[in-house]
Amino acid sequence: GDQLMCLSLSHYIFKLVIIWLSAAKLLKEKGLSPVVLEARDRVGGRTFTVRNEQTKYVDLGGAYIGPTQNRILRLAKEYGVETYKVNEEERLVHYVKGKSYPFRGSFPPMWNPFALMDYNNLWRKMDEMGSEIPREAPWRAPHAEEWDKMTMKQLFDKICWTNSARRFATLFVNVNVTSEPHEVSALWFLWYVKQCGGTMRIFSTTNGGQERKFVGGSSQISECMAKELGECVKMESPVYRIDQTGDMVEVETLNKETYRAKYVIVATAPGLNLKMHFNPELPPLRNQLIHRVPMGSVIKCMVYYRENFWRKKGYCGTMVIEEEEAPISLTLDDTKPDGTVPAIMGFILARKCRKLCELTREERIVSFKFDMSTNPQSSLAQPVHYEEKNWCEEEYSGGCYTAYFPPGILTQYGKVIRKPVGRLYFAGTETATEWSGYMEGAVQAGERAAREVRALPKIPQNQIWQTEPESMEVPPLPFVTTFWERNLPSVGGFINFLGVASVLSFATTAGLLAYKKGLLTRS
Amino acid sequence: GDQLMCLSLSHYIFKLVIIWLSAAKLLKEKGLSPVVLEARDRVGGRTFTVRNEQTKYVDLGGAYIGPTQNRILRLAKEYGVETYKVNEEERLVHYVKGKSYPFRGSFPPMWNPFALMDYNNLWRKMDEMGSEIPREAPWRAPHAEEWDKMTMKQLFDKICWTNSARRFATLFVNVNVTSEPHEVSALWFLWYVKQCGGTMRIFSTTNGGQERKFVGGSSQISECMAKELGECVKMESPVYRIDQTGDMVEVETLNKETYRAKYVIVATAPGLNLKMHFNPELPPLRNQLIHRVPMGSVIKCMVYYRENFWRKKGYCGTMVIEEEEAPISLTLDDTKPDGTVPAIMGFILARKCRKLCELTREERIVSFKFDMSTNPQSSLAQPVHYEEKNWCEEEYSGGCYTAYFPPGILTQYGKVIRKPVGRLYFAGTETATEWSGYMEGAVQAGERAAREVRALPKIPQNQIWQTEPESMEVPPLPFVTTFWERNLPSVGGFINFLGVASVLSFATTAGLLAYKKGLLTRS
Repeated sequence: GDQLMCLSLSHYIFKLVIIWLSAAKLLKEKGLSPVVLEARDRVGGRTFTVRNEQTKYVDLGGAYIGPTQNRILRLAKEYGVETYKVNEEERLVHYVKGKSYPFRGSFPPMWNPFALMDYNNLWRKMDEMGSEIPREAPWRAPHAEEWDKMTMKQLFDKICWTNSARRFATLFVNVNVTSEPHEVSALWFLWYVKQCGGTMRIFSTTNGGQERKFVGGSSQISECMAKELGECVKMESPVYRIDQTGDMVEVETLNKETYRAKYVIVATAPGLNLKMHFNPELPPLRNQLIHRVPMGSVIKCMVYYRENFWRKKGYCGTMVIEEEEAPISLTLDDTKPDGTVPAIMGFILARKCRKLCELTREERIVSFKFDMSTNPQSSLAQPVHYEEKNWCEEEYSGGCYTAYFPPGILTQYGKVIRKPVGRLYFAGTETATEWSGYMEGAVQAGERAAREVRALPKIPQNQIWQTEPESMEVPPLPFVTTFWERNLPSVGGFINFLGVASVLSFATTAGLLAYKKGLLTRS
Repeated sequence: GDQLMCLSLSHYIFKLVIIWLSAAKLLKEKGLSPVVLEARDRVGGRTFTVRNEQTKYVDLGGAYIGPTQNRILRLAKEYGVETYKVNEEERLVHYVKGKSYPFRGSFPPMWNPFALMDYNNLWRKMDEMGSEIPREAPWRAPHAEEWDKMTMKQLFDKICWTNSARRFATLFVNVNVTSEPHEVSALWFLWYVKQCGGTMRIFSTTNGGQERKFVGGSSQISECMAKELGECVKMESPVYRIDQTGDMVEVETLNKETYRAKYVIVATAPGLNLKMHFNPELPPLRNQLIHRVPMGSVIKCMVYYRENFWRKKGYCGTMVIEEEEAPISLTLDDTKPDGTVPAIMGFILARKCRKLCELTREERIVSFKFDMSTNPQSSLAQPVHYEEKNWCEEEYSGGCYTAYFPPGILTQYGKVIRKPVGRLYFAGTETATEWSGYMEGAVQAGERAAREVRALPKIPQNQIWQTEPESMEVPPLPFVTTFWERNLPSVGGFINFLGVASVLSFATTAGLLAYKKGLLTRS
């Protein structure tokens, strides 16, 4: 068969990996002979399952999956890796202004009527704007130029009337893309939420992106693929040179091996292309793009307890924490599905991550504890074990979960994100159009790139992009919006309404008075 | 002497190079034995002097120098490289809304009184804000957080009342940092302008950053240094691996050489650090910083004519072009100081650069012509020769002139820009605190880094940073502001004044009437 190579400095995927492995798997099935070059001494990239006595297993990288992520669910099924639901049976907790408020559902409820209108309008508006943005070409959205010149902070300042909505909106960006609202393009973030299925799908545990985890850990998928691929997966082989000047593409690795291939699939995050020296140089737009799409900032922390005290108290383990001094912004229960190894997972995100980044592990531990009832900073329960992974320190990831686009970049450089360069093709979750940034996106990208290579010229263009049948085991439910969610006015709309209403009621009253006093006659 | 190494993938300096060469030079003078590793087959980095019959010589990269750039002037003098003034004797041209307006001075004058107030307030405000920002630590400015969360576009939208000021402000960002106002942090841009000496110094030809050029071209400085350093400058040696795990730092190059050194000075633009694989990995903040500071976008073009028709018509050759369809935003006369080889230099900047980037040279040529009298798009004079350099395509520069900071990055990552990592030290014009982004900054950075290395532990800390005596040949003049420049109100101020004035005059009138009518009595 054709000789062919998929390479990756590491398959960079936190909320997932698997891209190059996906590509390689598909290629091998088609009778090709791929080689996979892996930078690290392990496969999995941004997924990273650690096994030890204290935890049994723990996902220190990408872990969550949910309905509509059909490709990764298909792969998992194929390898017999089962999923389980993240516990959300008891109440969630919203911690804000020094107090904990238990709640149920995806988003914390609002009691203040202005805040309620404002929240409702925020999600509705973001989804409305998202509906204008084409998944596969966000730079072609009708308002692409305008929205790309704006940061999400600017958009929130425009949409939100209350501090409470603005603050929660910030957390929403922090949690979803591990960066700050003022760092990201509004066009890009709205696209990102849209291609995950909207604000509800992306943020929800039940029926959303965090519904499930893999029994045994997410790295198993990559590990199973690597095992299936066998010898052709070369570990500890970071690529530093790609030469396309000869008949075959020549690839050199740090461990002094040279590989030759007909085609190469580069399955790293875009920014990690920079680890390679290209001959000939990349075209100007790609050469600049790869300097413009940094990875987010996150430390994933796991705190282990002797017993699951939160469920006993009636809390599921989810906390949404709005408190500048708290390192962790979001927690989820990470207890094993059989109830053993009670643990809470917490994310240190964006600005907080950069602040705590340079502390030692020990200093970080003392900086936070979990308490599901009152104050996230204090706890009666004493942790028995701690695991953490600071993704900012990973040379071959650059950060996690995924790359973000600062203002102005998506409209000017977006179109080259997966444009082949000679015999180089580009995969990586950042190049996906459904659940980009997640394991699912990694699989979509890897399989698409594999088909692109095969498509030279054997596969018709319209078969390069393939839709995926819905998972039977993890079916998505529609999100039902209530009459009020659809029709509640925004704060601005309400104020206008009040204005019009008072004018009207004034006019009516005046008219009535005038009529009574005989100043108006029927003519 | 100690063994020591300065390396650079290329000394990345457009508005200048010279950093590593500066460092190496200083080290050699101190009796050390540096090695300079140059990625390209030439020295000069972002300076690039081409010699040929048609042009004699031409600077396709960094070229301009001016008063207060004392270090590069000192070096030039040492090597006997002379400077000459860029022609600004005749009138400049401001092209806007399809018409050309001749003018004199640094900035186009405004005739509309609102536009005048607005312009005046814009420059004054930017310089005022700049005065709050410490050169060496912009992240410590009193409003650092607030200004870093804003793009320059946001700031302009806040400050400017007229479209005319907003449009010119955009061009000001395009010309100075080859990027768009919505792409850059306001804190960073205000710092950048400040550390060049303010809005007048940075934008002016006479008495500013573009006052002069080097007779014979700017690369001569690097070439002279390289010649002086001799054998120890290794060409075509891109570094791809730096290992600090042993006694000596080990450095490997693409041409399969290994070098060992006590210390290493990395003198590339920050983003180009990514071309190297580090062992141990870089600390988390540096690992993320280098993905977050992209280089600007510019194509430098030179059009040659049989005769200098613009001076004959009374124009100096400078055009400031505000016209979305025009590729070039700024031109300067590039005729040789003796009047031979008549030429106009033009910059294709930022958004326009990305648009024209992927055209061929031939397509670009037809897309613009110069005419100093009416329309920049048409010309009676036929060019006889054309030179251009698209810096976006350079793998070992990533763009030009310099790196920019998108919103949020300077306050979160700025402090590690020149923080040593073990035995690695960082130079490059981006690490400078005076004329960072220019040749001058490159020299400051290179010399500072050389002193830092020597300072282990021989040089007292307070001698690492040294001030430079003023050049005798190119003395700076103060910029004299007029009474009106200092005191003219902003449009907002003027409107407030009008409001107060009308309230006052109304009150006065009413008081007068009341008095006349006997409604007021002296009590």
